[in-house]
Amino acid sequence: MDYKQYITVVEDWPKEGIQFKDITTLMDNGTAYKSAVDEIVAYAKQQNVDIIVGPEARGFIVGCPVSYALEIGFAPVRKEGKLPREVIKVDYGLEYGKDVLTIHKDAIQPGQRVLITDDLLATGGTIEATIKLVEELGGIVVGCAFLIELTYLNGREKLKDYDVLTLMTY
Amino acid sequence: MDYKQYITVVEDWPKEGIQFKDITTLMDNGTAYKSAVDEIVAYAKQQNVDIIVGPEARGFIVGCPVSYALEIGFAPVRKEGKLPREVIKVDYGLEYGKDVLTIHKDAIQPGQRVLITDDLLATGGTIEATIKLVEELGGIVVGCAFLIELTYLNGREKLKDYDVLTLMTY
Repeated sequence: MDYKQYITVVEDWPKEGIQFKDITTLMDNGTAYKSAVDEIVAYAKQQNVDIIVGPEARGFIVGCPVSYALEIGFAPVRKEGKLPREVIKVDYGLEYGKDVLTIHKDAIQPGQRVLITDDLLATGGTIEATIKLVEELGGIVVGCAFLIELTYLNGREKLKDYDVLTLMTY
Repeated sequence: MDYKQYITVVEDWPKEGIQFKDITTLMDNGTAYKSAVDEIVAYAKQQNVDIIVGPEARGFIVGCPVSYALEIGFAPVRKEGKLPREVIKVDYGLEYGKDVLTIHKDAIQPGQRVLITDDLLATGGTIEATIKLVEELGGIVVGCAFLIELTYLNGREKLKDYDVLTLMTY
């Protein structure tokens, strides 16, 4: 499926010079959304995944249906102060600023095979931070899946030791 | 399924006196998560739903897999400044403060039958605000589905004109 026809490119958002790739028009189309998720489900099966991990909020949009389809768990990675129990945390730089990401300490069991999902691979900062959290808990990152990759931002460079699937590139 | 065994009750979070119902331990269990979503999928079929709407971020966790299972669209409701295109907005009070919710103006077509999903029905403020957004766009709210209902907060009172499904009550 040509997913790009469902993506809306928004000029100068969230700031001037950025061409934001809006996935909400893809999600609004049930057939396109399901087809995209199913490609990630097939990839997750091939990678023999035990659990899905996704950063909020768009990582949930991509990863939760994968988790459902495979009947495996989903562990959310969230901004500081959002998860109610004991967490580990990591500082990270992202495309438009800095932030802290956290995960519950018991979210992943050592040795679990983890697929990380998000909507967009840009500079790779968010995913690099998510990988750190997963590995600190003893998880094995067996794949990273994205709807979109912005190849000119070289996020793959940060992920060169990992397997990566992207459905669209810009 | 007895879903409560998968919920972690966290004392005094996010503030003293609150017994927070943490759904991450349910999502961590693939079988429990899928079973819960499947009950909402069955409800959505019965209500003949065209599109799912969920407020960030936990509304995505519940609603996105339902959308996937039914091969219908999902429209996210987000905090102000998070959606990139033209939105409508609503102010609302929630259990621990005040905020603004937004939805893309083209997210719902007039006459579409909408199921609203979230993890928790507390005071009902978030869902009341979400309903306002959906109805302003001409959508017909044919159901509201939650994993958990805090009956002592009387959220149902605000939703008395709507059909409501909850999987657990406290």
